Amino acid sequence: MDGHTISKDEDGATRTAVVMAAIRSRLAARTLAPGDRLPSIRRFAATMKVSPSTVVEAYDRLAAEGLIRARQGSGFYVTGGGLPPLALTQAASPQELVVDPFWVSRQSLDAEPGALKPGCGWLPADWMPDEALRRGFRALARADGAILTDYGGTRGASVLRRLLLGRFAEAGLAVSAEQLTLTGSGTQALDLICRFLLRPGDAVLVDDPCYFNFQALLRAHQVRILSVPYTPSGPDIAAFEAVVAAERPRLYLTNSGLHNPTGASLSPQAAYRVLSAATANDMIIVEDDIFADFEPEPSARLAALDGLERVIRIGSFSKTLSAAVRCGYIAARADWIDGLVDLQVATSFGGPGPVSTELLAGVLAGGSYRKHMEELHRRLAQARREVAARLEPLGIRPWLMPRGGFYLWCRLPEDVDSAELARLAVMQGVVLAPGNVFSVAQMAGNFMRFNVAQSRDPRVIEELGQAMAAMRQQGGAAAHD
Amino acid sequence: MDGHTISKDEDGATRTAVVMAAIRSRLAARTLAPGDRLPSIRRFAATMKVSPSTVVEAYDRLAAEGLIRARQGSGFYVTGGGLPPLALTQAASPQELVVDPFWVSRQSLDAEPGALKPGCGWLPADWMPDEALRRGFRALARADGAILTDYGGTRGASVLRRLLLGRFAEAGLAVSAEQLTLTGSGTQALDLICRFLLRPGDAVLVDDPCYFNFQALLRAHQVRILSVPYTPSGPDIAAFEAVVAAERPRLYLTNSGLHNPTGASLSPQAAYRVLSAATANDMIIVEDDIFADFEPEPSARLAALDGLERVIRIGSFSKTLSAAVRCGYIAARADWIDGLVDLQVATSFGGPGPVSTELLAGVLAGGSYRKHMEELHRRLAQARREVAARLEPLGIRPWLMPRGGFYLWCRLPEDVDSAELARLAVMQGVVLAPGNVFSVAQMAGNFMRFNVAQSRDPRVIEELGQAMAAMRQQGGAAAHD
Repeated sequence: MDGHTISKDEDGATRTAVVMAAIRSRLAARTLAPGDRLPSIRRFAATMKVSPSTVVEAYDRLAAEGLIRARQGSGFYVTGGGLPPLALTQAASPQELVVDPFWVSRQSLDAEPGALKPGCGWLPADWMPDEALRRGFRALARADGAILTDYGGTRGASVLRRLLLGRFAEAGLAVSAEQLTLTGSGTQALDLICRFLLRPGDAVLVDDPCYFNFQALLRAHQVRILSVPYTPSGPDIAAFEAVVAAERPRLYLTNSGLHNPTGASLSPQAAYRVLSAATANDMIIVEDDIFADFEPEPSARLAALDGLERVIRIGSFSKTLSAAVRCGYIAARADWIDGLVDLQVATSFGGPGPVSTELLAGVLAGGSYRKHMEELHRRLAQARREVAARLEPLGIRPWLMPRGGFYLWCRLPEDVDSAELARLAVMQGVVLAPGNVFSVAQMAGNFMRFNVAQSRDPRVIEELGQAMAAMRQQGGAAAHD
Repeated sequence: MDGHTISKDEDGATRTAVVMAAIRSRLAARTLAPGDRLPSIRRFAATMKVSPSTVVEAYDRLAAEGLIRARQGSGFYVTGGGLPPLALTQAASPQELVVDPFWVSRQSLDAEPGALKPGCGWLPADWMPDEALRRGFRALARADGAILTDYGGTRGASVLRRLLLGRFAEAGLAVSAEQLTLTGSGTQALDLICRFLLRPGDAVLVDDPCYFNFQALLRAHQVRILSVPYTPSGPDIAAFEAVVAAERPRLYLTNSGLHNPTGASLSPQAAYRVLSAATANDMIIVEDDIFADFEPEPSARLAALDGLERVIRIGSFSKTLSAAVRCGYIAARADWIDGLVDLQVATSFGGPGPVSTELLAGVLAGGSYRKHMEELHRRLAQARREVAARLEPLGIRPWLMPRGGFYLWCRLPEDVDSAELARLAVMQGVVLAPGNVFSVAQMAGNFMRFNVAQSRDPRVIEELGQAMAAMRQQGGAAAHD
């Protein structure tokens, strides 16, 4: 993407965040312990190459979070009695309208029934394989008692693992049984990998923009988040190679096919250079392939290119079959899978429940899955065209027209700030996904992600138009104050 | 408990583990970074007050794990290129028969169908509310489409939360809606709390013995695990007060009612002193109340005494209704719940799936639950008596006779090592739960936990008798070598 210029305010906010992150990582690593005095404002400003006022701002915010405390005339000290609980957001309560990476999750997960959710990340119920799921529940009502009551194996049901291995093989990815485990969800797959491979303070590289919950999850791991601009054929390769060589991140986290939020896919050339840079700098890649089955034809995959040496493939069934039946998977090196399975036992006492895996295996094996996906391809292609056409009169245009999937990453008219628009729209019961929740560098304030399957209700475009008009009026009024 | 004498070998193993843990925590805290030289054998032996050979043993093991590397003639160095993945166990593969806190989980979760599992931690399928569950699946087959396909709210289904609040109120625990969230499982409830409140290197106190997966989970959090001996009325209060004052642990993790593995319950006096010591030393308590409904009459609860100020109550439905339908809960201070819910969004994209919560709510609300639990009380009381009587001729005797639940914590004949017995028995397809997997201080080598509902098959006692005989023969033979 272009438009990387950062406004003066944004720049200041970024510098403050960098100083805060530096102190947080010292606290996490315990090089600053309870009772310790923080570096003086002047000295730390010099160390961090920022102005003293930026350090003051950062210390004040950390003090507001309770991590440090000012003592009259003698500087700032780490608070005693143990660190405060992990603070992932700056919002005092979920009700506060701080538009951060948690905002879309909270608003869309906790929306009232019937709310309009063009910003949410899943398909409407009536696009899902309703009859196959109902048939699955009727089958469960007759299943063996152990399936209804036991925990199941540490790697999840073998019937579902076998089905997955077969599907991987069809897609040209040779995975052996020892290289696969089921997990509680796709997000839990990524979480386990981060716990297994990362330590607080490690650097992790993501695309800009990227799926907002990647940021939320990485914050929970207290790692340093780096980003690289995403282009229509994958990450900006020159920037990618530079940041990987300079910062040597431990991990790169991406979607290769139908990238979230842009809908772009990785080109074979970009795939080769990404993997080469990773190999040269001993970086691990996590390829979240959750949208694989939405591609009309498969695009380049890092996992296939690499043969699961340093690439880990993860995915789930929440976009294609059901998000109410939680289950994900990890395909990786066999020795890593062993460690991940232990970690899943320690932290979840096993994988997904047999009820979920039995149901998913039934639907996948039932023969109706291929037809369901073909139907989805057809409906989504139509919805992408329709929704793009309806957004056009509002001056909202797709950055590119994706080959598949349900997202359109759109540029708004120049005078419209997407976070402000989202705050206005949510008061009218419309959940939007404003650009900057996807952007580590906060350079997507003029973008918005639309889920085309959730945007076909005419009220979505109506409410959007009204919110934009209201915003412009407020902006105009404010300019006259 | 008594019998705290530690054999010479166990003592050596413990010392090695302590040295290894000390190095691991320096690696985690990055006071030892990749490329750094480790302290010399002689110097570190003096620091840790152990013999040089113990340090050599510890360094060799850490090198085998890949954490450090010996350089010819110049000592040990932290391996470069980032820390290796988190190693939770010493076993190179799950197949290895290292009896550690993961051993019982792996053996019982991955047992072949039909294996005998007197060591496992759940009831057989035919003790569970089979008909109510099947009715629940038939109801799901007719449910609203959104329940079958959507993620559900960030705190989990409100219908199940309301049912839980009602049940807490009945038990004298006033919990408001803001103080409760559902989680993916009981283990995940504890895992979220640890991530929220703990940092690597923090001290956490557990009972000795305690549920083995507490240890596995705390290892994943890289905290320092302290333990206090458990008595028939709760933790040994003098020892508890001493360790809390001396070490100021951040958290104490316990089961108050029908403690796992002993089946003991906390007395009101012990509850008062535990809570007083926690308050005086600003320690948080996690009360895992997973066995609450197995008590014929409720015993003292820290959560009720404290009113959820510093006590967090967790639980699940896996022991009473189904482990195949994963769902747990956390009741705590409202501001902590907000933070925990954010963390669950970041790491699992929400709580338990609506399919699980709908099913559990249906069974709990259906009116048959009370009858099911009464039936379980009756059957378990009988099974406890029967199994105790069958173990008696083998010289295996309960440490106490619990008021409810499905565990008997038993002392073995003096010459029988329970880990060795478990290793022999598993080769005959019998999964046992040897004492030391429950013991941080490794002082329960002469104990074994029996699940009475899983021990009624006469083959359990037969196989146990044969394994004991084989062990004695081997021991005798070895003595003659």
